[in-house]
Amino acid sequence: MTAIPDLPRRTPDDAALPALSNARAPLTHAVEVVNERGEHEHLHIPAERPLTVYVDKREIVTLMTLGAQPELLVLGYLRNQRLARSVHDIASITVDWEVNAAAVTTRGGIDHIEQRTAHKVVTTGCGQGSVFGSLMDEVDRILLAPAQLTQAQLYGIVNAMRLMESTYKSAGSVHGCALFRGEELLTFVEDVGRHNAIDTIAGWMWMQPGAMEGGDKVFYTTGRLTSEMVIKSAQMGVPIVVSRSGMTQMGHAVAQQLGLCAIGRATNRRFVCYSAPERLVLQPELAQAPPPEARTAPL
Amino acid sequence: MTAIPDLPRRTPDDAALPALSNARAPLTHAVEVVNERGEHEHLHIPAERPLTVYVDKREIVTLMTLGAQPELLVLGYLRNQRLARSVHDIASITVDWEVNAAAVTTRGGIDHIEQRTAHKVVTTGCGQGSVFGSLMDEVDRILLAPAQLTQAQLYGIVNAMRLMESTYKSAGSVHGCALFRGEELLTFVEDVGRHNAIDTIAGWMWMQPGAMEGGDKVFYTTGRLTSEMVIKSAQMGVPIVVSRSGMTQMGHAVAQQLGLCAIGRATNRRFVCYSAPERLVLQPELAQAPPPEARTAPL
Repeated sequence: MTAIPDLPRRTPDDAALPALSNARAPLTHAVEVVNERGEHEHLHIPAERPLTVYVDKREIVTLMTLGAQPELLVLGYLRNQRLARSVHDIASITVDWEVNAAAVTTRGGIDHIEQRTAHKVVTTGCGQGSVFGSLMDEVDRILLAPAQLTQAQLYGIVNAMRLMESTYKSAGSVHGCALFRGEELLTFVEDVGRHNAIDTIAGWMWMQPGAMEGGDKVFYTTGRLTSEMVIKSAQMGVPIVVSRSGMTQMGHAVAQQLGLCAIGRATNRRFVCYSAPERLVLQPELAQAPPPEARTAPL
Repeated sequence: MTAIPDLPRRTPDDAALPALSNARAPLTHAVEVVNERGEHEHLHIPAERPLTVYVDKREIVTLMTLGAQPELLVLGYLRNQRLARSVHDIASITVDWEVNAAAVTTRGGIDHIEQRTAHKVVTTGCGQGSVFGSLMDEVDRILLAPAQLTQAQLYGIVNAMRLMESTYKSAGSVHGCALFRGEELLTFVEDVGRHNAIDTIAGWMWMQPGAMEGGDKVFYTTGRLTSEMVIKSAQMGVPIVVSRSGMTQMGHAVAQQLGLCAIGRATNRRFVCYSAPERLVLQPELAQAPPPEARTAPL
């Protein structure tokens, strides 16, 4: 249902990458509903399933997920929660939907996991709603690369997302996230929670040869730009975030503090830049162009 | 910014209710943005602030919240997480935005809090994204009252929400929840996360004389009907939930298991009933009536 590439697999060339299973499960479920005219209809709704994560046989957390890319979700969760410092800390991730479990084996154990999991912060975000306090402590130390995005590239990103085939289009009720280089789509993932989606992208980046850098990337989300979304983007080194939705005060404060360019309410030709406008190369003349809908309409 | 009544206060008539502070903080924040035409605009965005909850001086969790009704949020959080079994377990809740802390004092301590907080489930929901595993265990024991809702009442609820003055209308990026008796609005609350909003309603219900029962109530949310939203509604004894959004597979499964009537995609005259249609008294002829927009349009 998504455009995400096949899972990278461990190869002789990149033996240090974790070995990932390739668990698959249906992303949508057909249900019968009754509509306002009293008619019975069949709809598809997104899957939502628990995935309990065990690290070296120790239970860490249960994530509620769509299940599109569970191995990358778990890897990115460990990354964004700072439970793993490097992709090389992880030897393997094996997901088994028969028991809704992800078994993570580490190379030499994960340090300080008790301390890291002790301080729970329940965040604003959709989906994976829990980050640990240590995450906030690290924000001050983040330095973002001096990347820019042109208004033309921004419109390219918005249009690419508009045209994306997705579970959202078939079943609704999921959030989508994508990673771009300029307006080039690198990966796209959906989940019932947008935090799962961004974590899955973080896991995907770690699985790229050499662990992909974020400095020249743009992160797109259908969800709101809350503090956690901004922090996670910054943790991945991605200096520009684009959302179809709006922004919260703490997300705004963190973005300003980091010089992270946050662009919201991005649909068709419209958007607002909330922070670090110096990263956005404005081309106001493009705002006058007809929106893609009009361009694709029959003459 | 919301229609929620003033906080109930401890009175001699109801001395067993917790004493609540009345902490207030701005719900929106003005920011300067740059739009697609290169123009500078001023927008309002919703507040998002951390609130660290201490129960008898023990730190439990940090919630990220809009801050509209923090005392009721904390009370409802303790209720929905099953950290408090009765409103009478709580002696007082004092919120201090100077230090972003909520100090909860209990009557005789909260039982088993370590065990309850040990098993973390990170859920799909917007906002307060963490429930504890014990919550799921209790679903099977929930019995919901045999309440019904007419299609006319449903349209009344949808229209009441459409007309509600809200932070969402002024700043966007928040979720709204409301509690209705039939089509009578009892309380409305918004938060950056919809789980905070439902927890605030749970806290509000506990503060009503005699602790309000949910059996004849309808719960409305702007957010998706995920498993956690359905479970929390059922925990409050509310047998009917209405959403502007859709539903996930696990939310659907739990609603069917409990015989909870879940109605989604409810806008204007349209809706779909996902579960327990016997609770919805269909009046298909009403579906033909012009939507409120049309009725209020100039002739």
